[in-house]
Amino acid sequence: MADPSRNDVQNLARTCPIPIADYPEIQLAHGGGGRLMRQLIERMLVPSFDNPHLRQTHDGAVVAPEGERVAFTTDSYVVRPLQFPGGDIGKLSVYGTVNDLAMCGARPRYLSLGLIAEEGLSMATLWAIVESIRGAAEETGVEIVTGDTKVVDRGKGDGLYVNTAGIGFLLTKVDIGPHRIEPGDVVIASGDLGRHGMAIMAVREGLEFETTITSDCAPLAAPILGLLDAGVDVHCLRDLTRGGLASAVVELAGSSGYAIRLEERAIAVDPQVHAACELLGLDPLYVANEGRFIAIVPSSDADRAVEVLKNYDVSAGAQPVGEVLDDGRGLVTMTTEIGASRVIDLLSGEQLPRIC
Amino acid sequence: MADPSRNDVQNLARTCPIPIADYPEIQLAHGGGGRLMRQLIERMLVPSFDNPHLRQTHDGAVVAPEGERVAFTTDSYVVRPLQFPGGDIGKLSVYGTVNDLAMCGARPRYLSLGLIAEEGLSMATLWAIVESIRGAAEETGVEIVTGDTKVVDRGKGDGLYVNTAGIGFLLTKVDIGPHRIEPGDVVIASGDLGRHGMAIMAVREGLEFETTITSDCAPLAAPILGLLDAGVDVHCLRDLTRGGLASAVVELAGSSGYAIRLEERAIAVDPQVHAACELLGLDPLYVANEGRFIAIVPSSDADRAVEVLKNYDVSAGAQPVGEVLDDGRGLVTMTTEIGASRVIDLLSGEQLPRIC
Repeated sequence: MADPSRNDVQNLARTCPIPIADYPEIQLAHGGGGRLMRQLIERMLVPSFDNPHLRQTHDGAVVAPEGERVAFTTDSYVVRPLQFPGGDIGKLSVYGTVNDLAMCGARPRYLSLGLIAEEGLSMATLWAIVESIRGAAEETGVEIVTGDTKVVDRGKGDGLYVNTAGIGFLLTKVDIGPHRIEPGDVVIASGDLGRHGMAIMAVREGLEFETTITSDCAPLAAPILGLLDAGVDVHCLRDLTRGGLASAVVELAGSSGYAIRLEERAIAVDPQVHAACELLGLDPLYVANEGRFIAIVPSSDADRAVEVLKNYDVSAGAQPVGEVLDDGRGLVTMTTEIGASRVIDLLSGEQLPRIC
Repeated sequence: MADPSRNDVQNLARTCPIPIADYPEIQLAHGGGGRLMRQLIERMLVPSFDNPHLRQTHDGAVVAPEGERVAFTTDSYVVRPLQFPGGDIGKLSVYGTVNDLAMCGARPRYLSLGLIAEEGLSMATLWAIVESIRGAAEETGVEIVTGDTKVVDRGKGDGLYVNTAGIGFLLTKVDIGPHRIEPGDVVIASGDLGRHGMAIMAVREGLEFETTITSDCAPLAAPILGLLDAGVDVHCLRDLTRGGLASAVVELAGSSGYAIRLEERAIAVDPQVHAACELLGLDPLYVANEGRFIAIVPSSDADRAVEVLKNYDVSAGAQPVGEVLDDGRGLVTMTTEIGASRVIDLLSGEQLPRIC
């Protein structure tokens, strides 16, 4: 589905299953457990995500396990603005949770959907986001089988917050996690960095007309399952969301106890992202991505892993960006383009609040 | 754990693992993916909910299925105020989701925890609520295996919103849902109605000194599993949250297509709840409960079901309150105490916003 621009929102308003003339905005009653809430659920939400589990309108869904183990994850999404170049909170809330399941080595299968809407949210905007969630779920092969809708009073939210939790199944005996990281392992990044964060910042800072940066937000299960199907012995996976590549690598070095050295030269950053980062005084290493990950694999498997990843559009830019060192201090360093060594640490907070 | 009153909050502040002198309030950086967020997660959240899955600090948890089918549910909690007589948002967010799993006939096992904190939330309050979540999880035998923390700017939230999703496993071949409701079935309510909603309203309306109503919020899995273990052929279960008994029965009548007749005389309401409802012009039938449910069972099993339920403190007040009629219109009526018949329908919205 195309991103809902202002025009699309007007078009979508015509197809909105709740009559917008009667209900132009979300009211407290839409979360109140009465007739208006039932209308919202039965006319808009259930048909959008239509499946037998949801149609039961029970307190939860009952599904059959399709693997030996169940992966379970959750994320809330509070991104501002709700719609941005390359995506919206709806896509983000499906892709983000699907991606977390993929990082466990699981095939994403079922999502829950929790909406916290602010009184006064435009019904057309809600419908656009629901449509976006529907499209993203279809694209990634997951079903939304259970959900919850709350409405908070005006001034106690910011349009819409979304929570998704996801379950997926592990079909093979994969064991993926920081505990498997070993000295000699290669760190592969799946593509260029910083596009999601800078697409959001461009909108917030009014730079939309100077730049065409779009978010990289995308589902990542396909390349991950590709790696596993190809028999690559994946030691660890991590998507590069809040805190970017730098924070992910620092956390993994800390968990594993081994040092990691990055090669600045190998890290791809789009020139426009680079320029926007310079303008705003940000470091692309710490900027959030929503369609990028790192895979940590044994050096013997690294070439094959890169080859497999290049078969998928979303990871066509995959390349090794660092290695794990036999050094018990868990430090992260980066060899800069001019050959110096720089210590990489967590920032105190984040450069960019409410990016996801 | 006792409910955190103001005094308890001060005591808890002393045990808070984040130094409150340095961080008296939640900052945006606590959700930013950097050092402060890691501190909050590693010092406060992971130790509170300590288990091997969470300790991995991976993007999700991987668990083994313990039954033939998986039940999956979610709820967001936006109750105002965060702490109220008989409970707080922490208890509510564990019990609520555990109860939804129980309503599917599943044994609750794993929860996810998504926190959306507002910048400026008192660290001591957060700690009190985390402690409350820990206690409620322990009490109900569920593990919090994955989570997410977001912070939104001041004025864009209301202290704290919590989302939990839950998975549970169905050990036996139970089939519970509106599709199994049949004419002749008996509707059993597990106890007196309206205490949660009126405990909240008493605080909001400043009636705390005139009434001692406490929320009924409580976990319900034990009596439900008791019914199933006793071999009661449970047709349908529903907890009586937003919209109360009336809305639950109207929804089930609608889904099943059969009429349901309630007996007002059989429905227990505490005299204080009754008085508070009269004062505020509310109907206890529509007021939210957080520790009450209805079980719909064949009339041949009704006596035994009531007997089983009476063995549990939380459902000691169980009694039949209505029956399913062979009438295809899906209408709900109530025989009032004076013998008249009143049609029960959904309210347009809810009497009480942000009750859960």
